[in-house]
Amino acid sequence: MMKKCILILNGPNLNMLGSREPEFYGDQTLGDIEKICADQASKLGLSIDFRNSNSEGELVDWIQQSKNNHVAIILNAGAYTHTSIAILDALRTTNLPIVEVHLSNIFQREEYRHVSFVSQVADGVICGFGSQGYKLAIDATAKLIS
Amino acid sequence: MMKKCILILNGPNLNMLGSREPEFYGDQTLGDIEKICADQASKLGLSIDFRNSNSEGELVDWIQQSKNNHVAIILNAGAYTHTSIAILDALRTTNLPIVEVHLSNIFQREEYRHVSFVSQVADGVICGFGSQGYKLAIDATAKLIS
Amino acid sequence: MMKKCILILNGPNLNMLGSREPEFYGDQTLGDIEKICADQASKLGLSIDFRNSNSEGELVDWIQQSKNNHVAIILNAGAYTHTSIAILDALRTTNLPIVEVHLSNIFQREEYRHVSFVSQVADGVICGFGSQGYKLAIDATAKLIS
Amino acid sequence: MMKKCILILNGPNLNMLGSREPEFYGDQTLGDIEKICADQASKLGLSIDFRNSNSEGELVDWIQQSKNNHVAIILNAGAYTHTSIAILDALRTTNLPIVEVHLSNIFQREEYRHVSFVSQVADGVICGFGSQGYKLAIDATAKLIS
Amino acid sequence: MMKKCILILNGPNLNMLGSREPEFYGDQTLGDIEKICADQASKLGLSIDFRNSNSEGELVDWIQQSKNNHVAIILNAGAYTHTSIAILDALRTTNLPIVEVHLSNIFQREEYRHVSFVSQVADGVICGFGSQGYKLAIDATAKLIS
Amino acid sequence: MMKKCILILNGPNLNMLGSREPEFYGDQTLGDIEKICADQASKLGLSIDFRNSNSEGELVDWIQQSKNNHVAIILNAGAYTHTSIAILDALRTTNLPIVEVHLSNIFQREEYRHVSFVSQVADGVICGFGSQGYKLAIDATAKLIS
Amino acid sequence: MMKKCILILNGPNLNMLGSREPEFYGDQTLGDIEKICADQASKLGLSIDFRNSNSEGELVDWIQQSKNNHVAIILNAGAYTHTSIAILDALRTTNLPIVEVHLSNIFQREEYRHVSFVSQVADGVICGFGSQGYKLAIDATAKLIS
Amino acid sequence: MMKKCILILNGPNLNMLGSREPEFYGDQTLGDIEKICADQASKLGLSIDFRNSNSEGELVDWIQQSKNNHVAIILNAGAYTHTSIAILDALRTTNLPIVEVHLSNIFQREEYRHVSFVSQVADGVICGFGSQGYKLAIDATAKLIS
Amino acid sequence: MMKKCILILNGPNLNMLGSREPEFYGDQTLGDIEKICADQASKLGLSIDFRNSNSEGELVDWIQQSKNNHVAIILNAGAYTHTSIAILDALRTTNLPIVEVHLSNIFQREEYRHVSFVSQVADGVICGFGSQGYKLAIDATAKLIS
Amino acid sequence: MMKKCILILNGPNLNMLGSREPEFYGDQTLGDIEKICADQASKLGLSIDFRNSNSEGELVDWIQQSKNNHVAIILNAGAYTHTSIAILDALRTTNLPIVEVHLSNIFQREEYRHVSFVSQVADGVICGFGSQGYKLAIDATAKLIS
Amino acid sequence: MMKKCILILNGPNLNMLGSREPEFYGDQTLGDIEKICADQASKLGLSIDFRNSNSEGELVDWIQQSKNNHVAIILNAGAYTHTSIAILDALRTTNLPIVEVHLSNIFQREEYRHVSFVSQVADGVICGFGSQGYKLAIDATAKLIS
Amino acid sequence: MMKKCILILNGPNLNMLGSREPEFYGDQTLGDIEKICADQASKLGLSIDFRNSNSEGELVDWIQQSKNNHVAIILNAGAYTHTSIAILDALRTTNLPIVEVHLSNIFQREEYRHVSFVSQVADGVICGFGSQGYKLAIDATAKLIS
Repeated sequence: MMKKCILILNGPNLNMLGSREPEFYGDQTLGDIEKICADQASKLGLSIDFRNSNSEGELVDWIQQSKNNHVAIILNAGAYTHTSIAILDALRTTNLPIVEVHLSNIFQREEYRHVSFVSQVADGVICGFGSQGYKLAIDATAKLIS
Repeated sequence: MMKKCILILNGPNLNMLGSREPEFYGDQTLGDIEKICADQASKLGLSIDFRNSNSEGELVDWIQQSKNNHVAIILNAGAYTHTSIAILDALRTTNLPIVEVHLSNIFQREEYRHVSFVSQVADGVICGFGSQGYKLAIDATAKLIS
Repeated sequence: MMKKCILILNGPNLNMLGSREPEFYGDQTLGDIEKICADQASKLGLSIDFRNSNSEGELVDWIQQSKNNHVAIILNAGAYTHTSIAILDALRTTNLPIVEVHLSNIFQREEYRHVSFVSQVADGVICGFGSQGYKLAIDATAKLIS
Repeated sequence: MMKKCILILNGPNLNMLGSREPEFYGDQTLGDIEKICADQASKLGLSIDFRNSNSEGELVDWIQQSKNNHVAIILNAGAYTHTSIAILDALRTTNLPIVEVHLSNIFQREEYRHVSFVSQVADGVICGFGSQGYKLAIDATAKLIS
Repeated sequence: MMKKCILILNGPNLNMLGSREPEFYGDQTLGDIEKICADQASKLGLSIDFRNSNSEGELVDWIQQSKNNHVAIILNAGAYTHTSIAILDALRTTNLPIVEVHLSNIFQREEYRHVSFVSQVADGVICGFGSQGYKLAIDATAKLIS
Repeated sequence: MMKKCILILNGPNLNMLGSREPEFYGDQTLGDIEKICADQASKLGLSIDFRNSNSEGELVDWIQQSKNNHVAIILNAGAYTHTSIAILDALRTTNLPIVEVHLSNIFQREEYRHVSFVSQVADGVICGFGSQGYKLAIDATAKLIS
Repeated sequence: MMKKCILILNGPNLNMLGSREPEFYGDQTLGDIEKICADQASKLGLSIDFRNSNSEGELVDWIQQSKNNHVAIILNAGAYTHTSIAILDALRTTNLPIVEVHLSNIFQREEYRHVSFVSQVADGVICGFGSQGYKLAIDATAKLIS
Repeated sequence: MMKKCILILNGPNLNMLGSREPEFYGDQTLGDIEKICADQASKLGLSIDFRNSNSEGELVDWIQQSKNNHVAIILNAGAYTHTSIAILDALRTTNLPIVEVHLSNIFQREEYRHVSFVSQVADGVICGFGSQGYKLAIDATAKLIS
Repeated sequence: MMKKCILILNGPNLNMLGSREPEFYGDQTLGDIEKICADQASKLGLSIDFRNSNSEGELVDWIQQSKNNHVAIILNAGAYTHTSIAILDALRTTNLPIVEVHLSNIFQREEYRHVSFVSQVADGVICGFGSQGYKLAIDATAKLIS
Repeated sequence: MMKKCILILNGPNLNMLGSREPEFYGDQTLGDIEKICADQASKLGLSIDFRNSNSEGELVDWIQQSKNNHVAIILNAGAYTHTSIAILDALRTTNLPIVEVHLSNIFQREEYRHVSFVSQVADGVICGFGSQGYKLAIDATAKLIS
Repeated sequence: MMKKCILILNGPNLNMLGSREPEFYGDQTLGDIEKICADQASKLGLSIDFRNSNSEGELVDWIQQSKNNHVAIILNAGAYTHTSIAILDALRTTNLPIVEVHLSNIFQREEYRHVSFVSQVADGVICGFGSQGYKLAIDATAKLIS
Repeated sequence: MMKKCILILNGPNLNMLGSREPEFYGDQTLGDIEKICADQASKLGLSIDFRNSNSEGELVDWIQQSKNNHVAIILNAGAYTHTSIAILDALRTTNLPIVEVHLSNIFQREEYRHVSFVSQVADGVICGFGSQGYKLAIDATAKLIS
């Protein structure tokens, strides 16, 4: 039997993790985080579909397609968190549980990062815990879909 | 002789019509709307070029290319209505009549949907009439190009 | 059998059409527009009750009285669009379909014309198409009451 | 000897009470409220002059004329509460005690109903108690003029 | 030969002059001011048509009708100065010179009296000189129409 | 049989009544007001539990405990009216009728006193009538619980 | 006997009149205006002390010194109107009548020209009448000191 | 050997959990949550010191005292989250890891709940997961102190 | 004969001085400051009553009680400076001279520390001089009560 | 030996140069500008990699890839200048010198073009000089990398 | 040996002290204050260089020159406090201790006097104590330079 | 034949270059920059008139006088950039090309340095390139006047 699959989406510049502003984001790469997620999901009897894109439109596409193939969405929309009503609308087209994650504590950064369109539709938000935030998000998701 | 062709552009998440928040958008699909538009255009001796995209950049591309092939633009830019200066600038590069359409009455929704960059350059705006709004937009366009 | 009647209300200064700021409003008079409306309504098997007033209170009176005699309201509240909570409240006392019309695209004019109290309760909004906007409004209304 | 008379003014749309948005305003008519007021005034040895108008100008007229004929004003200015500096100025031309009444708790409604020009000059404000608010206002007025 | 006639309009509560807040408005009545205006106009070979109303709609009516009968408008719109887009629009329908007058210096009063819709279309503004302001306005008008 | 009991809470500095800023609050003491309340409640077959505290936390405690012992709350939260979300949340934990009272007309005082968190949950508001406001509040409460 | 003398102060860039932005300021020079003022003052039995400076500090100096030598101040502070609290404070150190003049109607120009520190202390304001505004200001001043 | 102890603080009205607005907070009591925390901490070799208070000052006291006895703070400051600079300052006096928890997703509630003073100093934030949020917070804390 | 006594109140987290954010507050303890104050008061023939509390309500209590026992108040309200209308109101109930002190220059810190409710009623403000600010405050107070 | 290469990126609608709003942008095409850049770079011993895209995501991609292949970035982000935090974040992932260019003086256009996310990370900004701005940018860049 | 010298600068209109708005500034002249300063400095083994100017530029000049001749600056910039970034920048060019003084409590006056550019760079601020504030400032300065 | 001369104006505190905040402005003196400018102008067959002043009025004077003697203005108005409408107005009296220069990138500094009155009238803006910015400005100017 196939394991239930969580769609984990990463927005712009998250592919640069490890080199980008390590004081906010730490030195782990996105590949490291994917591995953490896969391991944690596996422990909970789940699988993951881990993707990243710099394109707002592609993220919207993927969210729209999640409906039939996934049981939940974990979303770190990066900079689009603060500007994309399109992603918000896409999330509204699904009925899946949604968990918002940020590596850094966005509330300690620039004013324009304090507002999240994703938060308006996410079940819950986890931010500031670096890569561990993804692990917590998988735990939270497992609970939401149980 | 070829019929004059109206470019009808649909922005992000409009491809999800029918399933997405029916209290705002009704239960018709985008395919249904395309058919309504084709029928109405045909009655008026016009043809349509009906497209949709989740990508801001692709919408900009299409608007730029409209110049030589179309006689007018009907635009439902979805969420990009409220955030895209790039689409506004693209519209400014054409000299075509522009009609802005929204399925729902955007002024009865969230504050951030009350502002439209498209309105700054559209000849007219039609919103709140669901799929019929497209039919009205074609009538309006026919008049504008006559 | 009496035809169903649409109440069409025109707010302050619309009686000056033809002479007033033609760059925004065109050179048709309000009488011309009434004729356009009557013709279009007639085509759709409807009649119209076309009025105008410079007085906020009189517009409120007429809206209150619409309840028993009309099947829908088409409203171009002119300057009161942007300032009259009294008209908004009057519209709320009816259960009729309401279509908001403006001759010019109010979103391309002064900041204080970008906000509409009428939009908070109108089923739909049509603006920027000059006198044709009234014709479209009648079409839209016919659909709403069908 | 003539009883002292309180001028009780009701602004736009209050004549629609009973049918208008009963979740805010209850199902009593303005006639019912007039009766409550007359009864309560009578108990306190006072008479009332109970009027309503949809016209800002007429309300201003009545307030100006109150000076010689009345001992106090109870005012439910309806929508004009939030927009009319003219009514505020008229109230300032009298030296009568002024009591502001609202049927609903205006602070739980739309943002634009949270501001009252009347409050700037009223001795006191009573809101949220439906028709009973008028009865309380008469009690309060009786005390103010004693 | 008929003398050229200036329309002098006075908005809400100006009929109460003499009793209303004398610290702002002095103790002259509106009748006194009419006499001052008639005298000054006469000296300059002009006549006046001096009116006042508490009704926004009536002021709009009068402004619309000024076109054919008057050579200029002097306007003290009272409280409507700060709230009436309808009066602004009416003024725009005329091509007459417009002089805005206020008895008090509105910039030393409440914040909401610092904004004037009339100023957007008036040729000039005179405020703070009490009844003498009308005399200055007639001088200014005489110059504007010469 | 025990009389139904209304919890009457008074916030910070109300214990100083009589000496504190008499131009806003009059010269009655809080003891005087308690007596007025007890008398009026008694006339209506009710009893009162009259308390005051300078501590936000203690007011929260008392509101939480009201549930089982009281039939309604009359609250003059003083300065906490304008700053305490904690009191608002406490009020939301009860299902009791809530009447908000202020001695002065808070809308004629400093800007920061124009906003009330209590109003968001109170059934009604009475302000500006000095100690008589409490009497009116008891009348209003008696009606609400009847 | 010496004539009473009015201090007439002109702020930055008014010395450029005639060449500077004639659409706002007309083609008269400051010398022309001085002559108009001298003539009008003379007619009224007054003299003038007419100065201009580009320096905020020098304007402050002159205002401070006005006390003993002048009977009133007419001030066109130019750009400093909108930015100089120092000039406002200087004006407050005199007890002389103060008349504020502007050649253009500042309320029809950029937003930052809508605020005047001078207005907070001026007896009256005259704007939009070009050089005639100075003549009116002298008339107004003559009345104020009479 | 004593287990390392996490201080878990709960602000105003959290003691009412189970009865208070269950649509936001669920039906578990604070006692249930304490048990969840104790169990999870125990699994991770940690102990907890679980407290709640309606008093801002008492919460400040407890945070100040945490320094010597605890290894980290988990804080659900309730309504004080949005208003208390005192709690923020107290948190700054410790050098302990701080995790902010909210049962509901505060970004989907009233505007005034969107701002958190606690977030300015917390290492991370978890909100919207109900009682499970505390469990995740303990996991996050265990990682932070490891 | 008893020396005149100054009430010196210290708000939340000032008890942590010496360990808390030394870049803002220096390394002296509150005990050190009390000694400085006692010495300086003694030199001027005055005594002090030096207290601190983390509780807004307790600070309000102490201010209310100051009336009979003290000749002046020196207040460092800490975080409550920026949020407490209750303390402001309490200060208004006394007629004592009030001196506001802050260790750091609050205008160089976060935006929300730039506003002080205490400043609205304090005779004077001293900030940025660390513990010496208390000494200056005592000097200033001595002068105010002399 | 390979010449050092500058990445020159052009955002949405810059491909339309020559036809688009010539009053702001002149009549040169983007091809003309590329030639100007190549010539100037060549004079300075540098090469260029000149690209344009309507897609925010593609611009982000190119910026991320610049790290290894280029010595500096010259960026005219067009409309994305004012809306794209994603591009800002991408720029932060490089350590290259960044020069921001605009053809028009953005500060003389619409309010929403006055804010630039790019400016937050650019070494310098050049705007208003049309195509010459690119030439100046290359000079500036040559200096920055020397 | 020469005494260390403090530069004491006084901004616009402070030369009018004694006559200017005595309710804010008292009846002492600037000469009186200079004497107070000289006496106090002398007691502390210091000398003063006491100047005043109405010119922003001259104040900037003097601050720039202070570097080599003075040990500290005491600055009462008067109205320039609230508007002069030039003075702020000049202060930043020195490394001297800076004490900001105001005679009145600026926080109890007009809104535009609540912001101080000087405060952004001053070590400390003293306001509201009249001429004694200068004496306190000298004490504070003596401590800062010790 | 005389070379065409560019007026290069430097505002307040630029004379302090080299010592003032080198992290923003570098360690070159204004004399160094003058030399760079003279050299670059000379290469292009131009001369310069290089001045600096701390006085807003003097800068206004110089700009006014530029008309007859110079072919263009390069302006670094320093702090007056952000506050001086007088300088903006002076620039409007000339018809010369205007280039605005700033040594630092003003958009990365304090909020109040993000707004430039000079930008409203400058042909172009160059900022962030230190002294090289002046060199670029001369190149840009040479092009503008060619």
